[in-house]
Amino acid sequence: MPDDIIKLAHGGGGLQMQRLIEQELLPACDATYGRGGEDAAVLPGAAQIVLTTDTFVVRPAVFPGGDLGKLAVCGTVNDVAMRGARPVYLTLGLVVEEGTEIALLRRVMRSVRDTCKEAGVALVAGDFKVVERGSGDGIYANTTGVGFPLLPEPTSIHRAQPGDAILLNGPLGQHGLAVLAARGELELMMTVESDCAPLAGLVATMVEAGGAGVHALHDPTRGGMAAGLNEIAAASGVGMELEEGAFPRDVGVEGGCEVLGLDPLQVANEGKVMAMVAPEVTEQVLAAMKAHNYGADSALLGHVVKGPAGRVAMRTMLGTRRIVDMPSGELLPRIC
Amino acid sequence: MPDDIIKLAHGGGGLQMQRLIEQELLPACDATYGRGGEDAAVLPGAAQIVLTTDTFVVRPAVFPGGDLGKLAVCGTVNDVAMRGARPVYLTLGLVVEEGTEIALLRRVMRSVRDTCKEAGVALVAGDFKVVERGSGDGIYANTTGVGFPLLPEPTSIHRAQPGDAILLNGPLGQHGLAVLAARGELELMMTVESDCAPLAGLVATMVEAGGAGVHALHDPTRGGMAAGLNEIAAASGVGMELEEGAFPRDVGVEGGCEVLGLDPLQVANEGKVMAMVAPEVTEQVLAAMKAHNYGADSALLGHVVKGPAGRVAMRTMLGTRRIVDMPSGELLPRIC
Repeated sequence: MPDDIIKLAHGGGGLQMQRLIEQELLPACDATYGRGGEDAAVLPGAAQIVLTTDTFVVRPAVFPGGDLGKLAVCGTVNDVAMRGARPVYLTLGLVVEEGTEIALLRRVMRSVRDTCKEAGVALVAGDFKVVERGSGDGIYANTTGVGFPLLPEPTSIHRAQPGDAILLNGPLGQHGLAVLAARGELELMMTVESDCAPLAGLVATMVEAGGAGVHALHDPTRGGMAAGLNEIAAASGVGMELEEGAFPRDVGVEGGCEVLGLDPLQVANEGKVMAMVAPEVTEQVLAAMKAHNYGADSALLGHVVKGPAGRVAMRTMLGTRRIVDMPSGELLPRIC
Repeated sequence: MPDDIIKLAHGGGGLQMQRLIEQELLPACDATYGRGGEDAAVLPGAAQIVLTTDTFVVRPAVFPGGDLGKLAVCGTVNDVAMRGARPVYLTLGLVVEEGTEIALLRRVMRSVRDTCKEAGVALVAGDFKVVERGSGDGIYANTTGVGFPLLPEPTSIHRAQPGDAILLNGPLGQHGLAVLAARGELELMMTVESDCAPLAGLVATMVEAGGAGVHALHDPTRGGMAAGLNEIAAASGVGMELEEGAFPRDVGVEGGCEVLGLDPLQVANEGKVMAMVAPEVTEQVLAAMKAHNYGADSALLGHVVKGPAGRVAMRTMLGTRRIVDMPSGELLPRIC
C-alpha cells in the first residue's frame, strides 16, 4: 500500500519529511536534547559540546563548485557553527558501491582533507563499508561533527525575538541549481556554481561582532530558505516580515528556476547562513559578514515580528504581499 | 581496469580493506588523533571526549538475535567502550531506499530506542535521506558515539604488554553465522543467535575491577578475532600465545562453520570484547566478567609475549602450533 512505503518525497526536506521524522524517528530521540529541530544538539558534559550528523547522497558526486567530499564536510561543519559554536572534530562514514572507481574515492577524500583544513576541523574517526552493485550509487558519506560553543548561551532556532533583524550572507539556490545542471536536467544559459562552503570562520566573526545579540542562526539546506524561515518562526513562536527587493540576487539561478518552475526560496543552499540578531548589534554583524570572504553580498532582508506566530510574510517587488509557506510537494531528490 | 575499482573484498575487514584505508583514507585524517587504528578516538577539549563512527549495511535487516537498529547502537556503543569509556551520546544517520516498508523503519527505530536505553546512551541528533529504488537496499544506518573516559589513561590497542592475560567474554562467530542463516545461505542444524549486545555495562565493571591494569580492549567485529588479535599485536609490537582449548565454544557455530568452510576466528562478533590485562588484576577482571550478563562464558585464552612482534600463535587442541593470520581473502560482505 503506497501509504506504507517510503517515497522520495519523504527525503525532500518539506512537510512529508517533517511528519515522518515526527512520527517515526523522534520517539527514539532523547526527550531533553534530541527533539528541538536544531541544526545541532548542545550537550552537557565536563564542558558543553555541540554535536550533529548528516549523510550525503548527492547525485552526481561531482558538480560545479564542489563534490561529495567538500559537501560532506561543509554540511556538518555548518550545522555545528549554527549553534554559535566552533567545529573542532569530524568523523566520516563511507558506504561505497562495488564497482566504484577508486579515482572517485581519491578525489572525494582529497576534498575532505582540503575542506577540513579550511574549516579548521580534524578528521579523527572513520568507517568504510562496501555494498554490492545495485545496492548503492557510487559513494554515500556520513559526517558527524563535534564543536564547542563560542557563547555562554548557544544560538538557537527557538531564540528569535520580535525586533530582530533577519540577515543573509548571499544569493539563494546556487547549490541546488548547480547539482541539477550537473545532472544534465537543465541547460543553463550561464554557469551556476554551488555555494558549498565551510562557514565556521564567517560565523565566528559574526559571533565576535554581535556577541549575545546573535540569537538564531540556521542554514537553509534542503527545503531552502522557505523551510528554514518557517522552522525558526515556528520554533520561536514569532512572525517574520521580509522584503523581496532586499534579497541578494543571482541572475543565473533566477533564469534556471524560471525555466524549471522552481522557487529559489525552496532550493537548497550549502554555504548560506540566516541570522536573527538584536537591533543594537545588527550594523556590526552585517559589517562583519560583508568583510568576510563568504559574506560579501550579505543583506538585511527584514525583521522578526510578534506574530502571527509561525507566519513568514514577504512584500514582493510588485508591492503585493505573499506568505512564504513551508514547502510541501516533491522537492529535489538527492541534492545533498 | 579491475585494480582501479572497489570490490566487495575492500569492505571485508581483512588485508585488502586495511590497505585501501591506509592508502586512500588515512591521508585525510588528523595526524595526531585519527591514525591509530583504534576503535574510537580520545580527544582533548575542556574535558577528554571519546568519539567513533560506524555505518551499518547488514543484510537482511532482521536476523536471529537482533536487527539493524540494535546492531547500529551496539556497534558504536561498543567501540566507545573499548577505550575504557562510558558511552553517553549517540547520533543516527539513515539512508532509506524508496519503496522500503515504513513498518521496517518503525521496527528498526524501536530497537534503536530500546538498545539506547539498555546501553545508557541518549540519541541526540539524526539525519534522514531517501534514495531511489536500486540505489540502496532497504535501510543503511550510521551511528556516531560520544563518551567520556573512565580511566586517566584510556585503554588502547597500543598498550598490550608482555605478561598480560588475554580474556574473552564468550564464544566466537555467532553474529556472522546468524546473519548467514537469515540469508538462507545456510541450513543450520541448530539455531544460532547473534551475540549483538551493548557492552558498556560489562566494560564498566571490568574497568572498575581492574583499574589501570586493564591495558587494551578491542571488539572482534569484521575480520573476527583473528583480525582483532593481529591488530593489537601489531599496534603494541608484541606477540601472543593462545590455547585453542581455552576458547569458549558454541557447537552451533562450529557446525555451521564446518559446513561453510569458515574459521570461527574470522567470523564477525557484535557482543564480544577481548581484553589484555595485567597479571595482578586478571583474576578480579575475569571474575567481574563472569558475574555479568554478557560475560558468563568468559575465559582466559592465553598471554601476551614479548615477540616476535605482531605474531599471534595458538596451540591447537591436537597439540600442534598454528599462526593465527590476519584474514586476507574474501570475507563475508554486509555482515554489519
